Amino acid sequence: MSDFRFPSRVQKLRERLAKDELDAVFISNGENRRYVSGFVSSAGYLLVTQTEAIICTDFRYTELAVHQAPGWRIDRIGGKPDWLAKLVNELEIKTLVFEADDMTVDTLERFKKALKENDAEPELIPTTGIGVDLRAYKDSGELDLLQHAIDIGDQAFEETAALLEVGMTEKEAAWVFEKAVRERGAESISFETIVAIGPNAARPHHATSDSKLIEGQTIVFDCGSRYQGYCSDLTRTVVLGDADDEIKRVYDIVLTAQLAAIDMVRAGMTGEECDAIARTIITEAGHENDFGHSLGHGLGLEVHENPGVGPNAKGKLENGMPFTIEPGIYIPGWGGVRIEDVVVLENGKARVLSHAAKMKF
Amino acid sequence: MSDFRFPSRVQKLRERLAKDELDAVFISNGENRRYVSGFVSSAGYLLVTQTEAIICTDFRYTELAVHQAPGWRIDRIGGKPDWLAKLVNELEIKTLVFEADDMTVDTLERFKKALKENDAEPELIPTTGIGVDLRAYKDSGELDLLQHAIDIGDQAFEETAALLEVGMTEKEAAWVFEKAVRERGAESISFETIVAIGPNAARPHHATSDSKLIEGQTIVFDCGSRYQGYCSDLTRTVVLGDADDEIKRVYDIVLTAQLAAIDMVRAGMTGEECDAIARTIITEAGHENDFGHSLGHGLGLEVHENPGVGPNAKGKLENGMPFTIEPGIYIPGWGGVRIEDVVVLENGKARVLSHAAKMKF
Repeated sequence: MSDFRFPSRVQKLRERLAKDELDAVFISNGENRRYVSGFVSSAGYLLVTQTEAIICTDFRYTELAVHQAPGWRIDRIGGKPDWLAKLVNELEIKTLVFEADDMTVDTLERFKKALKENDAEPELIPTTGIGVDLRAYKDSGELDLLQHAIDIGDQAFEETAALLEVGMTEKEAAWVFEKAVRERGAESISFETIVAIGPNAARPHHATSDSKLIEGQTIVFDCGSRYQGYCSDLTRTVVLGDADDEIKRVYDIVLTAQLAAIDMVRAGMTGEECDAIARTIITEAGHENDFGHSLGHGLGLEVHENPGVGPNAKGKLENGMPFTIEPGIYIPGWGGVRIEDVVVLENGKARVLSHAAKMKF
Repeated sequence: MSDFRFPSRVQKLRERLAKDELDAVFISNGENRRYVSGFVSSAGYLLVTQTEAIICTDFRYTELAVHQAPGWRIDRIGGKPDWLAKLVNELEIKTLVFEADDMTVDTLERFKKALKENDAEPELIPTTGIGVDLRAYKDSGELDLLQHAIDIGDQAFEETAALLEVGMTEKEAAWVFEKAVRERGAESISFETIVAIGPNAARPHHATSDSKLIEGQTIVFDCGSRYQGYCSDLTRTVVLGDADDEIKRVYDIVLTAQLAAIDMVRAGMTGEECDAIARTIITEAGHENDFGHSLGHGLGLEVHENPGVGPNAKGKLENGMPFTIEPGIYIPGWGGVRIEDVVVLENGKARVLSHAAKMKF
């Protein structure tokens, strides 16, 4: 078993099965598949029992799976879901956990039908959030990859910020960033780059447009890179030319809220408690209704993953968890300000992983 | 109602509801949402009845939805699924169709629970393939966008092919293509570009690597661009330097099979029958076991959509449907050859939309 690429991840699944007295877990989520096995593809499943660890994938990926996932048995599967029934019978699986937050209603129905037709009728047990348990804590290898993704994103942003000029469109600015990221070795951006000038910035998830950059308005730049699967996420707000007093006032509130949350968050707090640190400052400054999203989110193989860091996030933030801290203020017709860093909790406190410069007044 | 951006698409949904005597359809799939309403986002639902057409989306996207989807009522929703229950009660919906091939098991359970808690208990009717009916046929506006995406991809490929040289890595070659696509106005590539040299090309879905291009081996280049949502898909096989007789022999079989399928496909054939045209030629040439994927697939807002064009595709190919024709031969340890064009059926026959040059001997 020691020839798995990530033996401790397989072990955690098995410990969970043993604890719940269940026979097998069936993983359909692509990022969880990658995390547990090291196998990167657009299709396939993992089946893990106490004695077997099997990758089920089709003709296109079996050779790749052999290469990427040492220690795993590789089963080539076809389009019809009979293969799952055969495995259930072969391994005498009586209880099978599946990912209810990944599998579609239709896929489950098709598996159920094939199981029944093949006289394989394990108890099917829905679960959610396998990724929460598995992936919210990052080991040192993962943090190295995440830091590398963040460094690429930070450098690419700073290079891009220096090239922003009046008349450039939001889309052109986003493309400058994307080229810079790729030319530094990232495999891709980690999400569609958001560049939002002036009133566009009042939409936290503005779709980057052909609007041209002009002087004296906030430009919200929300961007990330992906390196060996790991996603960075950075937001900076900048202004070309001079910022007026209103921009300075709003920016100062957001920055104060962000730095306070970074400074005061502690391991053991809930995501809700962390969110409240920044939200209280924004509320007390009179912008209660202008910060309509969560303070942050975990990130790793997905740009949004656990832990949650928002008004309804009941889970605890713990050492080893990286997440973003990104308060914002959005005023329709005027614009917006958002500032975002990635932090990781270590020794009970936040260490900041993002190093891109912030605008100062 | 005429102020919808795509009134005929809403109308088709309503006709389907009327035919099946059902009250409402609930669309969760992002591409279907875009197709029917014109609203482009990463989150949201459509609810369509005979009299109402509602976009349900969160704080981040409501302003965008108003802008992109004239004629639709925009409801701002929160994280808890109570809103669906309120709509069901307000609109007196007794039968509600949902997309079982998109909605996860867990999401359905959460909706069911919220409906029950709010005394809204419509009959929930699973359906699959709403996109099949809606999106397999393309109207002329869609075909224009698809052609534009294809033209960008064709030109970018030809520019890239002229720059390929010994010592360049597969990843570098893919990046040359991607830059060319973007600089021609595409919003993105339509899927991860595949560049596969020599034995790598024996894997139809090789993950583009740091392998260096060398002379005398096949390079399979599978690439696409996305323009206003529409996806192109092109594969060419090229050789740097001289091709040996074995490459020429295999290439000739694949090209013959491809041209035969383009020439002989007819509206009214099933996807299976179209596939068989090319597969028979490859089989008779002694490569029965070396063509392990389908001949093609429909494409549009997704790079793989209906119609199916493969050994088990029972649906008919009809006028107005674009799809790919892409036979291949893959020999482990040696390499592979694949050639792919997009065609659309018109007046019963295939018109080729791809114009990138093919290697000739």
